[in-house]
Parts: sequence; structure tokens; C-alpha cells
Amino acid sequence: MAIRYPNGKTYIHSDKVPPKKQLNKQLTSFSKRGMSLEDDINASNQYYLVKGKAVIHKKPTPIQIVKVDYPKRSAAVIKEAYFRQASTTDYNGVYEGYYLDFEAKETKNKLSFPLKNFHDHQIVHMQQCIEQQAICFVIMRFTTSERLFLLEAVHLIEYWNNQQQDGRKSIQLKELEKSGYEMYYELSPRIPYLKVVDQLIAKLEHVDTLAIE
Amino acid sequence: MAIRYPNGKTYIHSDKVPPKKQLNKQLTSFSKRGMSLEDDINASNQYYLVKGKAVIHKKPTPIQIVKVDYPKRSAAVIKEAYFRQASTTDYNGVYEGYYLDFEAKETKNKLSFPLKNFHDHQIVHMQQCIEQQAICFVIMRFTTSERLFLLEAVHLIEYWNNQQQDGRKSIQLKELEKSGYEMYYELSPRIPYLKVVDQLIAKLEHVDTLAIE
Repeated sequence: MAIRYPNGKTYIHSDKVPPKKQLNKQLTSFSKRGMSLEDDINASNQYYLVKGKAVIHKKPTPIQIVKVDYPKRSAAVIKEAYFRQASTTDYNGVYEGYYLDFEAKETKNKLSFPLKNFHDHQIVHMQQCIEQQAICFVIMRFTTSERLFLLEAVHLIEYWNNQQQDGRKSIQLKELEKSGYEMYYELSPRIPYLKVVDQLIAKLEHVDTLAIE
Repeated sequence: MAIRYPNGKTYIHSDKVPPKKQLNKQLTSFSKRGMSLEDDINASNQYYLVKGKAVIHKKPTPIQIVKVDYPKRSAAVIKEAYFRQASTTDYNGVYEGYYLDFEAKETKNKLSFPLKNFHDHQIVHMQQCIEQQAICFVIMRFTTSERLFLLEAVHLIEYWNNQQQDGRKSIQLKELEKSGYEMYYELSPRIPYLKVVDQLIAKLEHVDTLAIE
């Protein structure tokens, strides 16, 4: 397999690295860099923010706090809390006046993307956003092949609704190749998703122009 | 003082209510309704969502999780966690294609709004949003008089930056009456802030028209 520099990960063959150095590397805060889709998107958002291109943040995980201790002379400690289900997607923000809203998901499957990665409330939220003229999509990653796709929420919702009719619980890779936009890792930003967003905006404006004519 | 029905709160004089009934009332989930600015805004957002007017959510509080237990046959329990400082404002979302971003703050002061209610990182975030053509503002409430204002972030940033020069650590109420938009409680939505947003959008479009001419 070819060395994958363009995705921002340096490929180090284990034979060439002494075990001790490898261990040190794992202990630094950089060790998880480029590991997960979430890390890659957060790094891309940070790049876009610093460059003044867009303001996109991941929403914090919603937590139900039950018990908090307030020790003297130190910060409050949460002693009992539970994870709650989010009522929205994970990412949103603003890009040149456009509201962006998206979710990111990965699968270990090779030839299809299981729809069980998404939840009812996320689909409902996406539908609500689309009705408010949001630019709404999902970033999907096949972890084995490292292939990345951006799929507009309208298409995801179609696949979602078709589950009831045709019983297909996943999106086939070859369908995604047609209905989605394939993206390729770069150095900075790692996932240049705004390039695809530019295409979505151009499409929107084309539709607007047609409506006026 | 007059009975304030328009704000959606029923004013019950304590002498007329038997103690037991009052206690019961406090135990229902409705007891905190209309109590805090946050509750009022959340209820207004919920109204706008259900009516299909806008999709605006409060972001969850960011938490740093340190220790989680996974008991058998029950949900994961967070056993140690700490509050983190948010890097953005509390509310954002989409309204008719426009990205809205805002913060809500209240003060017990009667004649001025202390700037210490805001934090550096929030001001930076608002500035970043403005550069991306967001509609960005703060909703401010004087708890004693129950007066409500919407102030555009551009003005807040002016007051913030002037602190260094003129040393004024708060916004005077009479300044807010000029530079802000006063809002009045209604039944539904309790805080009809989209009415002001409509004015902000009209102003934006007027500026755009002038630019074209």
C-alpha cells in the first residue's frame, strides 16, 4: 500500500523505530492526531477559523448533571452525571453568510454505509434545517479504505425514508459515488469540505437564477 | 406594581394560596417556568421550532470528563468531570437562511449593565461571526424591572473596546435605550426576538441595496 502523505499522517514503519521512541510518541498530545474523523474535522474547523474562512464548531456532548461537589478553594467537581442524546447534529456554524449544519460518521464496512449510524432526531433536525435554507450534509468515512464522502442531507433523508419501503438498511458505496461528493485528505485543512460547500452554494444560486428567469 | 400578565407569568399573591398547594406547585416540572432568562429563551426557541419559523438551540455546557463507570446492565455513569469554559456564545441556529448567533445575560443592577457579564472569548467569537456575515447579538435583561433589550454585537464590541480608553465597565441603561432594541414579553413566544431580527435583516438588505446603487 502506498504511503499516504496527503492525509496529513506520517507513515512510520515500525521496524525502523526503537520501541522506546514509539512509546514516547504515544504519550504526547499529538498521538491521536489524524486518528479519528472527529479529530480531522476539528483540525479543519480550527484551520478555517484561524484563516478567517468560516466559524464552525463542534457542539459539546450533552450531559445530565445529577451531583456536583464544591470543594473549598478549588473548582466544582461533577460527581454524578449521565450522557444525554443530542437533539441536533454535532457541527454547525457560519460560512460567508451561509448557515452550515452537519454530522460526521464513520464505518468499518467496506462496501456500504449502515443507516443505523444516524438517529431519528438527527434526521428530523436536518429536515428542519433544510426548511430554513441551511446547507446541511453529512461527512462519511470508510475507515478501511479511508475514502471520504460529503452527502447532502436531502439525499440522506431519501435513503432514510426508503428504508421503510425497500428495506435497505444501508447506502451502497456505488450509490454514494454517484449521489455524494468524494473528498480527499490534504495537509491543511485535512478535510477541505468547504470546497464542496462552494459547489453546493453555486448550485443553490443557479437554482435561484433559474427561478427568476 | 402592576400584575404582569403579558410576560406569561401568573402572579399569585402568597396570602391567598394555602402553603400545601404552593409546595405542590414547586414540585411540578412547571415550577421554574418563566423564572430565568434562559428558560424564557429556550421556550421561545421551542415555539419557533414547532411553528417552523427557525431552528435555534442552546449549546450544551462543555464538560471535561475524567472518569466514567460502565456498570453492568445500566447506563454509563460519569464519576468525575469538570466544567470547561465555552469558546462560543450559548445560542445559534438558522432563520430563513440567516445564521443567528447570540448570548443571553441578566443583571440585578437597575441602571447599568456590567460588561463583566461577558468574556474575552465570547467577544472574539462574535467578531469572527460578524466577519462571516452572521446576525450576532446579545439579549440582556434587567431582572428587577424585567426590561429586555436586544443589542447588536457590533455595539457590544464597541462598549467592550472602549473599556480600555474611557474605563467604563458597564453600559448605561440610557445608552442601551438608544443603541439597543427594547423587547416586551408575550405569551408565545415569550421573548419574540425574531421580530427584532427581521428589522436587522431589513437594515442589512437596505445597506446591500445602497451598495448596488
